[in-house]
Amino acid sequence: MTDLPMQTALDLAASALFITSPNPRVGCLLVAADGQVIGQGHTQRAGGPHAEIMALRDAAARGHSTVGATAYVTLEPCAHHGRTGPCCDALAAAGIAKVVGAITDPNPLVAGNGFGRLRAAGVEVVVCTPEDGGEASRELNIGFFSRMVRKQPWVRLKAAMSLDGATALPDGSSQWITGEAARADGHHWRARACAILTGVGTVLADDPALDVRYVQTPRQPRLVVLDSQLRTPPRARIFAAEREVLVYTRSNDSARQAALEAAGATIVQLPAVAPQAAGSDSRIDLAALMQDLGAREVNELHVEAGGILNGALLQAGLVDECLLYLAPKLLGQGLGAFGGMALQGLDEATALDIRSIEPLGADLRILARVQGHGSF
Amino acid sequence: MTDLPMQTALDLAASALFITSPNPRVGCLLVAADGQVIGQGHTQRAGGPHAEIMALRDAAARGHSTVGATAYVTLEPCAHHGRTGPCCDALAAAGIAKVVGAITDPNPLVAGNGFGRLRAAGVEVVVCTPEDGGEASRELNIGFFSRMVRKQPWVRLKAAMSLDGATALPDGSSQWITGEAARADGHHWRARACAILTGVGTVLADDPALDVRYVQTPRQPRLVVLDSQLRTPPRARIFAAEREVLVYTRSNDSARQAALEAAGATIVQLPAVAPQAAGSDSRIDLAALMQDLGAREVNELHVEAGGILNGALLQAGLVDECLLYLAPKLLGQGLGAFGGMALQGLDEATALDIRSIEPLGADLRILARVQGHGSF
Repeated sequence: MTDLPMQTALDLAASALFITSPNPRVGCLLVAADGQVIGQGHTQRAGGPHAEIMALRDAAARGHSTVGATAYVTLEPCAHHGRTGPCCDALAAAGIAKVVGAITDPNPLVAGNGFGRLRAAGVEVVVCTPEDGGEASRELNIGFFSRMVRKQPWVRLKAAMSLDGATALPDGSSQWITGEAARADGHHWRARACAILTGVGTVLADDPALDVRYVQTPRQPRLVVLDSQLRTPPRARIFAAEREVLVYTRSNDSARQAALEAAGATIVQLPAVAPQAAGSDSRIDLAALMQDLGAREVNELHVEAGGILNGALLQAGLVDECLLYLAPKLLGQGLGAFGGMALQGLDEATALDIRSIEPLGADLRILARVQGHGSF
Repeated sequence: MTDLPMQTALDLAASALFITSPNPRVGCLLVAADGQVIGQGHTQRAGGPHAEIMALRDAAARGHSTVGATAYVTLEPCAHHGRTGPCCDALAAAGIAKVVGAITDPNPLVAGNGFGRLRAAGVEVVVCTPEDGGEASRELNIGFFSRMVRKQPWVRLKAAMSLDGATALPDGSSQWITGEAARADGHHWRARACAILTGVGTVLADDPALDVRYVQTPRQPRLVVLDSQLRTPPRARIFAAEREVLVYTRSNDSARQAALEAAGATIVQLPAVAPQAAGSDSRIDLAALMQDLGAREVNELHVEAGGILNGALLQAGLVDECLLYLAPKLLGQGLGAFGGMALQGLDEATALDIRSIEPLGADLRILARVQGHGSF
């Protein structure tokens, strides 16, 4: 059971869900020796103050002394000069007597140094167990942890389908299988991601905007398009929103590159994987793509693509979590969400752990994690 | 809200779930004027005593007088000489002062006559509202109501699939997609049905037993095989269980018929529907099949078949309810549960109302009703 002050700090962190990319969502609660809450805060947009600084400022603005207070913070205070000064120094300077930290920062630049410096400054430090808040904090920042530990994003794949598994009719028609509530919920998950990934096939077939519209957000996630032959039209709707658009390609067609750059795209060259069989196309190296997105500070990657790219990502073991919206209807013949994946036997199936089932209007949302992918 | 005595009567009725086919599941509770429960019972196997008789016998065995008592019964007492004598007469003869009936019997041989005869005999009769027990009783006997009103069974289609909608890999391998708990649950639904329907394709591909093994049952449901060309092997495992096997066909091949009859099958000829296009096979008339099964006293028909037959039933509007087991795994390319259905547009999708979602081991069971099919 998480104690109330730490739960409040976690709630503060969660309120920063759409804001902090590529930084983690962190909350901080300051409690005086008499138990009174004297300050609170959460991480701001990248380059802005961290949770601890916000909480110290809040206490000051409310006229409270922080000397002798306890700071509940959902991630180890930073010890490095990044975009801001080290939070551990600020806490010590403010006279904080005790820091309760939910979990150690996986960032190699911090990784225990924050807690260490606090202790060296005479501050008592308590690090929570996973059950006491560590796991909740890590889950809230699963993408950040993934990027720091695995050097690649946490990949969450969204698909909307009928109860019998069709994402579209065989002719591709798919608007709309799920209802308004499910679509709005999908935008919530887009909004929390650092980037959205799609394939050129989806751009050509549906010309989607792939931005966040149904929910309020202070920032649009970046958009990543896999487009080996640079077939993305420069007038595609994906270029309408204010955000970075990365087009990953193997094409050297300079005219197409220039046209897409003029539309606002950043072109990134990626190596192909070796052809698997005579006559097969060499494809984009998806593992290298993920490493590159990690290097570009993508924590959570939200995938909305067709069955070919979805299936290739899944078969490459690169999907961590599935966000499946099931509409209460039956379509019969149709396109599958992972149609690009062909198994030799049932034992090759990707096993999932269902984490939640949520009704959304008439639809269901199932959040499921690929087995073993949460442990890193 | 259902009153406690009627809820107890409904529980008694539900305890007869596997037993009474083709009769309805009925429960009866006798309560003396002082509120004491003096007898209870439920319908026995067809030809055996009804719930009211069982409750009267129970009261007698316990040494209670039933004079002046109230009988709570989940279906209108019968007024006709069927396999047993009229229950309404027995209740009146036992001195029952009041009958609370959950719902009127849809059987045209009863249909108000039971309540009428009770009133004529001086017994007070109260018929529940749908909320007070009528709807619960009807749901428990949805197949009996369907057969009485629509002259055809309530068709419940079972399918087990991966979360991305595959019932099998493209090569047909499907054992096992779901786990032990889901398979055992599936046998519960088989056990409550009057008959199980499959297609010859499933018999040839999987040679399933299609009987009830995982749960205790006093009777095996009948098995119905759709087999237009009589390709069912006489040595198929479906003939192993003690039960009637009906093979519906359009074939007049007397040698095959004789071989299947020797194996224990009953051969039924059915008219074909007119060919829909030049070169297309004429098929079995599924609506006529359902009428015939209704005439054969099938209340609940449990369908376990392949995508072709499933899709044809669905497209013909003959599926009333879907029992879907979703395994937490992804298969990519695979066979769909309703692959035989091809829609022209998304507006032709079959809309469902989800009635329950139940975890079964790692799997999920979704019970969903085809919209509008519950009202008749």
